[in-house]
Amino acid sequence: MAAEPLVIFTPSGRRGRFPEGTTVLDAARSLGVDIDSVCGGRGICGRCQVEPSFGTFAKHGITASPDHLSPAGEQEAAYERLKEPLAADRRLSCAAHLRGDMVIDVPPESQVHRQVVRKGLTVRDFVVDPVVRLHYVEVERPELASPSGDLMRLFEALEREWGLHDLAADLDVIRALQPALEAGDYAVTVAVHDGHDVTAVWPGLHDKAYGVAIDIGSTTIAGHLADLGDGAVLASSGVMNPQIRFGEDLMSRVSYAMMHEGGAIEMTRTVRTALRTLILGLATQAGIQPVDVVEITLVGNPIMHHLALGIDPIPLGSAPFALATDRAVRIRASELGLSAHPGARVYLLPCIAGHVGADTAAVILAEEPQRSTPIRLIVDVGTNAEIVLGNQDRLLAASSPTGPAFEGAQISAGQRAAPGAIERVRIDPATLEPRVRIIGVDAWSDEPGFAEAAEATGITGICGSGIVEVIAELFLAGVISADGVIDGSLAERTPRVVADGRTFSYLLHEGFAGGPRIAVTQNDVRAIQLAKAALYAGVRLLMDHLGIDAVDEIRLAGAFGSQIDTTHAMILGLIPDCDPAHVGPAGNAAGTGALIALLSGAARTEIERVVRTVEKIETAVEPRFQEHFVEAMALPHRTASYPNLSTIVTLPERPATGEGASATRGERRRRRVLAVGGPEEA
Amino acid sequence: MAAEPLVIFTPSGRRGRFPEGTTVLDAARSLGVDIDSVCGGRGICGRCQVEPSFGTFAKHGITASPDHLSPAGEQEAAYERLKEPLAADRRLSCAAHLRGDMVIDVPPESQVHRQVVRKGLTVRDFVVDPVVRLHYVEVERPELASPSGDLMRLFEALEREWGLHDLAADLDVIRALQPALEAGDYAVTVAVHDGHDVTAVWPGLHDKAYGVAIDIGSTTIAGHLADLGDGAVLASSGVMNPQIRFGEDLMSRVSYAMMHEGGAIEMTRTVRTALRTLILGLATQAGIQPVDVVEITLVGNPIMHHLALGIDPIPLGSAPFALATDRAVRIRASELGLSAHPGARVYLLPCIAGHVGADTAAVILAEEPQRSTPIRLIVDVGTNAEIVLGNQDRLLAASSPTGPAFEGAQISAGQRAAPGAIERVRIDPATLEPRVRIIGVDAWSDEPGFAEAAEATGITGICGSGIVEVIAELFLAGVISADGVIDGSLAERTPRVVADGRTFSYLLHEGFAGGPRIAVTQNDVRAIQLAKAALYAGVRLLMDHLGIDAVDEIRLAGAFGSQIDTTHAMILGLIPDCDPAHVGPAGNAAGTGALIALLSGAARTEIERVVRTVEKIETAVEPRFQEHFVEAMALPHRTASYPNLSTIVTLPERPATGEGASATRGERRRRRVLAVGGPEEA
Repeated sequence: MAAEPLVIFTPSGRRGRFPEGTTVLDAARSLGVDIDSVCGGRGICGRCQVEPSFGTFAKHGITASPDHLSPAGEQEAAYERLKEPLAADRRLSCAAHLRGDMVIDVPPESQVHRQVVRKGLTVRDFVVDPVVRLHYVEVERPELASPSGDLMRLFEALEREWGLHDLAADLDVIRALQPALEAGDYAVTVAVHDGHDVTAVWPGLHDKAYGVAIDIGSTTIAGHLADLGDGAVLASSGVMNPQIRFGEDLMSRVSYAMMHEGGAIEMTRTVRTALRTLILGLATQAGIQPVDVVEITLVGNPIMHHLALGIDPIPLGSAPFALATDRAVRIRASELGLSAHPGARVYLLPCIAGHVGADTAAVILAEEPQRSTPIRLIVDVGTNAEIVLGNQDRLLAASSPTGPAFEGAQISAGQRAAPGAIERVRIDPATLEPRVRIIGVDAWSDEPGFAEAAEATGITGICGSGIVEVIAELFLAGVISADGVIDGSLAERTPRVVADGRTFSYLLHEGFAGGPRIAVTQNDVRAIQLAKAALYAGVRLLMDHLGIDAVDEIRLAGAFGSQIDTTHAMILGLIPDCDPAHVGPAGNAAGTGALIALLSGAARTEIERVVRTVEKIETAVEPRFQEHFVEAMALPHRTASYPNLSTIVTLPERPATGEGASATRGERRRRRVLAVGGPEEA
Repeated sequence: MAAEPLVIFTPSGRRGRFPEGTTVLDAARSLGVDIDSVCGGRGICGRCQVEPSFGTFAKHGITASPDHLSPAGEQEAAYERLKEPLAADRRLSCAAHLRGDMVIDVPPESQVHRQVVRKGLTVRDFVVDPVVRLHYVEVERPELASPSGDLMRLFEALEREWGLHDLAADLDVIRALQPALEAGDYAVTVAVHDGHDVTAVWPGLHDKAYGVAIDIGSTTIAGHLADLGDGAVLASSGVMNPQIRFGEDLMSRVSYAMMHEGGAIEMTRTVRTALRTLILGLATQAGIQPVDVVEITLVGNPIMHHLALGIDPIPLGSAPFALATDRAVRIRASELGLSAHPGARVYLLPCIAGHVGADTAAVILAEEPQRSTPIRLIVDVGTNAEIVLGNQDRLLAASSPTGPAFEGAQISAGQRAAPGAIERVRIDPATLEPRVRIIGVDAWSDEPGFAEAAEATGITGICGSGIVEVIAELFLAGVISADGVIDGSLAERTPRVVADGRTFSYLLHEGFAGGPRIAVTQNDVRAIQLAKAALYAGVRLLMDHLGIDAVDEIRLAGAFGSQIDTTHAMILGLIPDCDPAHVGPAGNAAGTGALIALLSGAARTEIERVVRTVEKIETAVEPRFQEHFVEAMALPHRTASYPNLSTIVTLPERPATGEGASATRGERRRRRVLAVGGPEEA
């Protein structure tokens, strides 16, 4: 008797012998080859496409010829009529039967656990392994003589065809089952959540399910809509967080809840309305219905997280900043009143501590310090800076009260990053004249075309990245001393330095086209000093805990992190010294992490495990935080601390004393207070 | 060294030696003695009371003296101040420490799994083992330095103090947790559902939780409210099923759903409103708040079950009568809009088949045929008769289309069982004169005081039990022949038999006090014949399947089953012959079963297992059902079939032919049709 045909699958390399007539899909499954199918091998979903390879494979000792597979027949023709033509080299593995030795390639898009390489979004490669799976089944018809319920027969079919057991079904599914069976002639597709809960049922074959990943920021709420089958992001959008009318920053929202009866409920209602709007917008953009959204992930800082869930945020407003829960939360979309499929589930990543939220958990998921050998520092700057430091051995997290200066608030000419805002600045150390670039205009201010373009947008203020650059440049140019004082004596050399009461300002832009006069005041410098000192002190504290003096890599997350120039951030002393090649923006890492959690059950398991092991450092109870803070007021501290930076810029000499030479005793005391309560300029 | 004190617990007989100073509660727990506690041994809930026994126990070889237990101290004094005095012979087992050998009795009310003996309700004894348990815990306070969430610390406390793990919490619990912790000074009581879900949280000690068990009948909806701790029924009540306005019987409600767009939704809304009203009434009656109800069980026939869940009942209206689900359904009370605790769960017992519902499952739970050695027949008569037959070896169930005749519908003078209805009838075989008793009057019509009392209530009609009795009595008196014909020749002997077109009637009551004239017409006899033949044929069919000719026990469930006289039921041939000592009413067995399922998780497991093994017989597809039906039209079939009955009444001789001698061919054909579609008199 001749040996049974040998089939070898690539890229897995799995191989085995099977009787002639075995389908390629069955052979793949019995070898554990990862191959997708929604319809269960009925030739209708088209997910199980493979590419047969022909020729002699000396390495494997076999010759694969076209007649070693059954020719494409009626089943594949029907598929092409129903859905779309198959590529010339493709077969439906469920319709191709083995007749001899074969080498079969399973292309990435036919794998369930497919590796996803993203463009546009700064998402690391990860394996799509969604929590919701679609399964097409043919359910036995009810018979008078054996009166079992339709749900039972559905479960039996799911067990028989897909090996699923111990299933439960939502009440909505029980309600929708009989109409779906009737409409689908006893063939239906179900969504199974986490291998256990049947959360949706559709008549016939339904091979698309979608998910939405949302990052609820205090200012903006941003979301991605993705195909849960292949992980493709089909729409991305953002809306303002309408809670802003209750307070710009987090603490003012907590205050609102404290001061107004029902204030928290009002903010919950408001944010949920925005979530509905966002999902609706994403669905429209992707050309789908919100009812096709079956899975949602949410991240946000603890206060946004609690308000979205309808949990009173007041305990988060004062020590000990107790979270209601630091576990991942799994609920139904209907519990939050979100517009989605009635069976849609919501997954909220775990919060880490009272000031370190699910957004930071998402940042960890996106940036993976827990898998890194080098020590990685991840900073997400907002009103609070969330700081994560460590590597595969140990991970620490803290939040530092930077205040809103980096977002342009508390800065005389500060504004949000929007067209017309100055975002890039260079100052000539010789002439002390500035060059600027504004959002919405490509040219620098000394390049042709700038004036015309800028007249259209206006020059309206300085955004966060602009303020960091201008202060760093003024420092490099000697206009600002290491202790942060604008040198009034330079008023003799340049009309840019002007007296401003008892202190001095640097005039960055003389208003034109009705626009404002834009200057950097002494108060602005102080606000940035306080903010950057808070951030640096938090980082330094974690470095102390980890017992290190330098970090190997730095990732700047969030909108501010994407905008700022890392060199200027280092010049300003915002972040510790690091090889510039290993410093970079992380993009919207929180949103990315939410997306990863949407598309991968394994990622959820991982982040829940990691969050439990993260060491939470509370800056407010650490005396060393105060010391680091005071020390970090100067810019930059010590040249010796910035060996990498010193190779790329020439830093001014350090001042006579180490800790902000000109600071008076009163000023030092004030800084201590502000370091706890959040920076605030008198 | 002296041996450690020996402690013996009664009634379990468990014994062990423990170091001096061990609390009685700890000793009991380490021996696995069943002893209750909500507060976890803190001396505040009073659930763990025990009765120490003193004296010499020769059998055990020990002497227990009062000084072998620590004297009652501050903890028990505090309990008495806070709650209530302890009985003289009682101690809190958590406050009593062993000092020497002891015999300790655990009274029934201190056991978690307590045996309940019911009065009033006809409930078999069963072990209370509720699915919801209350646990008092002291939760660690949040600390700035170790910022774990409150929920995590709650779970840790529940694991530490109660050995509960893998817990999850409802969103409402997460929301309510922090306020409860604050109000309770970090001591809270939680409700844990099924050992897994935390569904409620209260500040401090909260030692009462309640449940409601509801039987949704087509006509009335009846419920019991019970204390989940000790199983005590605190309130029982019923409301009319307001769906009656959409149709008296089940099939007319399905018709309503078919004929009216949104009709099913309307009926769902209506029944849920009634459920809310019922729960509110029960809570008021018990002196509790609906929000203290944390668990609800529901039973009902398949159509009531589906409508309550909001499932379209139309598929239940025509073959193959497919249930949406034949599994137990577990949902939240909020999904049905019921007024209860936000975390309250609803459990619906499984339906068995398209015509055999969760109410029958509840009847099985109450009547336990699956634990019986004798073959038990259980019949629940409504518009359909649900029939269960078998014993521990095998159980069969069917539904037979009796129609509403037994409920007084389709009977010329028929009415519901209400004051003024004739419910008992005796007919003198010599004079053919009747004696009657009416609901609301104790005296028979030939006894003093009847006329006066009856004038008050009126004599308004005949209820189901009355119609069964009068026809059986007329048969025994020879007025009705074995084939159901009223003998017109008797009109010469008595004015009670009167011509009525081409047939005759028996005048039971000449109207008085403005009341109607009440007669039994030939059509009435036919309607009852059809109904009883359908019931009997169903029973007979199950007996055939089981291969038996006689049953050992008969239980008649439901309102009709409680009212009818079992001897008359046998004379009429409603039920097969059986020793009258083993025939009796089962009371509201469906409601009882719902109550058992409310109070016992083990009972839920049991009924789900039993329902899967029940053999469902569909009468409509069994040719023998037709044969039995035609044969069962006669009253009573064959004397030989009624050996037991023949010993207590003298039955008239059997007619010349076996199968309803006078039935014409046309009438036989009509009966065949009716047997499937439900009896209906032309």
